[in-house]
Amino acid sequence: MSIPVEGVVPPVVVARHEDGSLDQVSYVRNINRLIDAGVHGLFILGSSGEGVFCTASEREQIIADTMEAVKGRVPVLVGCIETQTAKVIEQVKAAEAHGVDGVVVTAPFYALGGLDQVEEHFRQVANATSLPVLAYDIPVCVHVKLPVALLVQLGLEGVLHGVKDSSGDDVSFRNLVIANREAGSPLALFTGHEVVVDGAYLSGADGSVPGLGNVDPEGYVRQWNAFKAGDWETVRKEQDRLARVMAVARLATSVFGFGAGVGGFKVALKHLGVFESAAMPAPVPQLTGAEQDAIRDVLVETGLLSA
Amino acid sequence: MSIPVEGVVPPVVVARHEDGSLDQVSYVRNINRLIDAGVHGLFILGSSGEGVFCTASEREQIIADTMEAVKGRVPVLVGCIETQTAKVIEQVKAAEAHGVDGVVVTAPFYALGGLDQVEEHFRQVANATSLPVLAYDIPVCVHVKLPVALLVQLGLEGVLHGVKDSSGDDVSFRNLVIANREAGSPLALFTGHEVVVDGAYLSGADGSVPGLGNVDPEGYVRQWNAFKAGDWETVRKEQDRLARVMAVARLATSVFGFGAGVGGFKVALKHLGVFESAAMPAPVPQLTGAEQDAIRDVLVETGLLSA
Amino acid sequence: MSIPVEGVVPPVVVARHEDGSLDQVSYVRNINRLIDAGVHGLFILGSSGEGVFCTASEREQIIADTMEAVKGRVPVLVGCIETQTAKVIEQVKAAEAHGVDGVVVTAPFYALGGLDQVEEHFRQVANATSLPVLAYDIPVCVHVKLPVALLVQLGLEGVLHGVKDSSGDDVSFRNLVIANREAGSPLALFTGHEVVVDGAYLSGADGSVPGLGNVDPEGYVRQWNAFKAGDWETVRKEQDRLARVMAVARLATSVFGFGAGVGGFKVALKHLGVFESAAMPAPVPQLTGAEQDAIRDVLVETGLLSA
Amino acid sequence: MSIPVEGVVPPVVVARHEDGSLDQVSYVRNINRLIDAGVHGLFILGSSGEGVFCTASEREQIIADTMEAVKGRVPVLVGCIETQTAKVIEQVKAAEAHGVDGVVVTAPFYALGGLDQVEEHFRQVANATSLPVLAYDIPVCVHVKLPVALLVQLGLEGVLHGVKDSSGDDVSFRNLVIANREAGSPLALFTGHEVVVDGAYLSGADGSVPGLGNVDPEGYVRQWNAFKAGDWETVRKEQDRLARVMAVARLATSVFGFGAGVGGFKVALKHLGVFESAAMPAPVPQLTGAEQDAIRDVLVETGLLSA
Repeated sequence: MSIPVEGVVPPVVVARHEDGSLDQVSYVRNINRLIDAGVHGLFILGSSGEGVFCTASEREQIIADTMEAVKGRVPVLVGCIETQTAKVIEQVKAAEAHGVDGVVVTAPFYALGGLDQVEEHFRQVANATSLPVLAYDIPVCVHVKLPVALLVQLGLEGVLHGVKDSSGDDVSFRNLVIANREAGSPLALFTGHEVVVDGAYLSGADGSVPGLGNVDPEGYVRQWNAFKAGDWETVRKEQDRLARVMAVARLATSVFGFGAGVGGFKVALKHLGVFESAAMPAPVPQLTGAEQDAIRDVLVETGLLSA
Repeated sequence: MSIPVEGVVPPVVVARHEDGSLDQVSYVRNINRLIDAGVHGLFILGSSGEGVFCTASEREQIIADTMEAVKGRVPVLVGCIETQTAKVIEQVKAAEAHGVDGVVVTAPFYALGGLDQVEEHFRQVANATSLPVLAYDIPVCVHVKLPVALLVQLGLEGVLHGVKDSSGDDVSFRNLVIANREAGSPLALFTGHEVVVDGAYLSGADGSVPGLGNVDPEGYVRQWNAFKAGDWETVRKEQDRLARVMAVARLATSVFGFGAGVGGFKVALKHLGVFESAAMPAPVPQLTGAEQDAIRDVLVETGLLSA
Repeated sequence: MSIPVEGVVPPVVVARHEDGSLDQVSYVRNINRLIDAGVHGLFILGSSGEGVFCTASEREQIIADTMEAVKGRVPVLVGCIETQTAKVIEQVKAAEAHGVDGVVVTAPFYALGGLDQVEEHFRQVANATSLPVLAYDIPVCVHVKLPVALLVQLGLEGVLHGVKDSSGDDVSFRNLVIANREAGSPLALFTGHEVVVDGAYLSGADGSVPGLGNVDPEGYVRQWNAFKAGDWETVRKEQDRLARVMAVARLATSVFGFGAGVGGFKVALKHLGVFESAAMPAPVPQLTGAEQDAIRDVLVETGLLSA
Repeated sequence: MSIPVEGVVPPVVVARHEDGSLDQVSYVRNINRLIDAGVHGLFILGSSGEGVFCTASEREQIIADTMEAVKGRVPVLVGCIETQTAKVIEQVKAAEAHGVDGVVVTAPFYALGGLDQVEEHFRQVANATSLPVLAYDIPVCVHVKLPVALLVQLGLEGVLHGVKDSSGDDVSFRNLVIANREAGSPLALFTGHEVVVDGAYLSGADGSVPGLGNVDPEGYVRQWNAFKAGDWETVRKEQDRLARVMAVARLATSVFGFGAGVGGFKVALKHLGVFESAAMPAPVPQLTGAEQDAIRDVLVETGLLSA
């Protein structure tokens, strides 16, 4: 099993009990549901997967639970998101020991040092593992935008095998797709923006990593199949529908950012009977009762839940 | 003649002689060329149109030259981009006197005061004119992102008639399209990002304002026609081709930003025989000879110029 | 009369009637009060002086009123803050015609192009006038920090005669003072941060441009005199007192930024009987009644107003 | 031994062999040198102390080496800088086991969630330990500025015992000092900006955490003693001298940020015979030979090294 070269690869949301501890039963239930829906891979311990909230022992548990539940049915990518190189390599090694299929790594953060150090970081991480390494381009969190030329160069050298683009910069993504194609497509390119997956497919993306795929995996798989069939009207209509479902991640007013987005996904999963609780990792609060009710309304209006 | 409700509306690049003074002959030549290519409107004195570089008398000249050249063949929108409300209204009044078809206005900048003041700004500007007002969402320049809810609300109230989106945020643009549609489409929505116009059309844009449209207006018009015919493969292929042409705006290394982008368009227009000079407004330098040669190569490789 | 080489140079706040029009009587009253208190110069049409809110005719009026009121008693510096070079030069020429003593110019903004263009901008502005040019370093508004080496170099060449530092970066200011001193002190260096003027004097500043100086000019003059006498304990105590007075600019909750700060100064001036109204330029609202009451309390508690 | 209530508390730079492994001998040599110079405490594993570069085992080693070398002569504060609450608490517990005197904690980063979550983060960390907790205000790294009112409130409640201010915002620091004083001084306030320590003392700081204190600890101790004696001219002159020494951290051109600053300190320590190597943690390169020579020149010119 190698890394997924294409398709829908949801970033798996972490299930917790009300006391904050990991809820393995709910977590595995979601994984099986995603695979049953036809997703082409799973991405764990990324931004939506609470990678930066988990202690080392929680990471171990989540990787182990995932690999045991997946049983090789789809490839598993593991986010190894840490401030600097040595700490990332430590996480990569730990993931490697579980037999995962690839790792997803951001630029270093906190202490910034420029693009030369970003490049050296990826080189050293790749050198330390036999696993495929995907770059995770997420400037809103690490405050560096990965340049197209650097990504393609590292792809050509075999340092990188793919990119998960959460840059919010569709212009740059288009340029990346074109540069990658002209270089012989060394990189598999995934978009992380769930409400414009159609545009990313049009740009030439190889797949998507939609957080909302936890809530409506069938929708993203249907959209993927329409894309492969060249049926753009269906791709577009499915996207418009999914953009309306995405309201579950947008309507919180008590929190914003991760707490509103992933918090909303967890509430939806609770309403859908997949999760037992919508508990969040400290210091993030769970959404309020009123917000949870509003999310239920979204699910009902969009047909994912019966009234 | 009212504002364009859809189509390709290039932001018209300013022609200057080598000494920096306005070159009316080249400017009018470009306008006629754009209209002959089938564009659906023109946008002058925006970011690409040197709105913030022009003195009041240069503005007067450019508006007058434009209106005389266009002779009502297509609608003309005028950027009124100034730091605060009173200065914007002064520009709007001046444009109004020339019989233009609409004005395009950013949030106030330099002294920031929050979204309540942005809203009040648009209300006061709209109150001061009978022209349709389009909001220009360009956070990279004004450091405020216009929120979807505010735009749609101002659309419903008749304060705004459209949005030119140069936010680089395709997620927000998709949300704007959906919210506008659910509100009865009070706003005409245009994307300003020339390399992802296909994705914007897929999202539901009413049109595009591509700076690169100065260089290759036929390409954008062909893409528009394919879009209206539902021929997505042509939309996409035309976009991939245009993204390669866009190298004219990306290959400068002596400058960046406006000087590289608009500077590249001007060089291309010179190579194409439309402009007499690629001169830029102070303090922006003209691109170097080597850069101008490289731009010629792009035009040749993409078939816009014979070798 | 040349530019002030040292001392307290308040940025003069604009007086408006309730309908927003200029209130010449209140404005002149404040100018006379400032000069009577012993300030060493005046800075008009800067950020606090509504330079970016005023139309060209309002600018003319304010410069004329100032020169007529000052009658040469202290030097007058005029902010010429516009997006790009040609527009700045137009303002500089207009100010020159009134016989002002110097102009204060920011880096260009809106369309950013890097430090080479910033340097060229200052060179072209200085070339266009015989007036001394001071650089206004205010990255929060123009999104460029002026580098120490560039400022000192332009000082050595006679392009710049001084710097008004509103960068909020005391480390950089210290480095600027040292580099300027080692270069033979070509630049007069002023801090714009009214609550840490003592630290700036310790760093080696030649003077201050405190917005709060509109409210309590005597305080800043006393502090200056103590500084010249080497009485650091008085410098410090005066600063701590002024930092408490500065609450007038910090307690607004209905607005922030310019509206809270300059808005607070105007309310204080109204309470002190200097201004007739605390009206602000569009689109900025005046502070609320409750906020105005709270500002009165600050003035009473700090002894500037009797209860 | 409780946390230092005042004085000079250098952030201790990490010594590494050329292969990147920890160099205990050089590290202990520096610690003894700092204590001999009269510093009032030590801060380890902060931004200069490579907290975000160290693996868990390197952290353990550094804390153990420090405690064994210090032997209770001065208090030791430990930076516990991690992305989110659970990971910080894990580091705090590990430090606690070594008998350290306090911990220094930033706002959570990577996944931002607003000030309510920052507050909750500090509360949960403080709840998990009996050690004094100092807040580390470093927006350039964590992209959140800690508000004055929040810090003072958490001080009054006993959640926080102090603040290390590396915000670069001297206005906010002055406001913090005044608000803390008015609240009965629950917080010990330290500045992290080595070139404006004099201004911070004037503002009312309780001490400083100067990275440059690794290079010239005697200078900062002399300045402190002058401050305590009310001899401001000496405070200022010492600061001007130290600002010139600070060139060791500013002259690199091959890197910037951490690599230039801490890299420069390490080179200086090598020239001074304290460190064996100037090796940096991956992915940061060591300064070049030419840069190392230039740093030697600074040390010679400022009298810290004989020619």
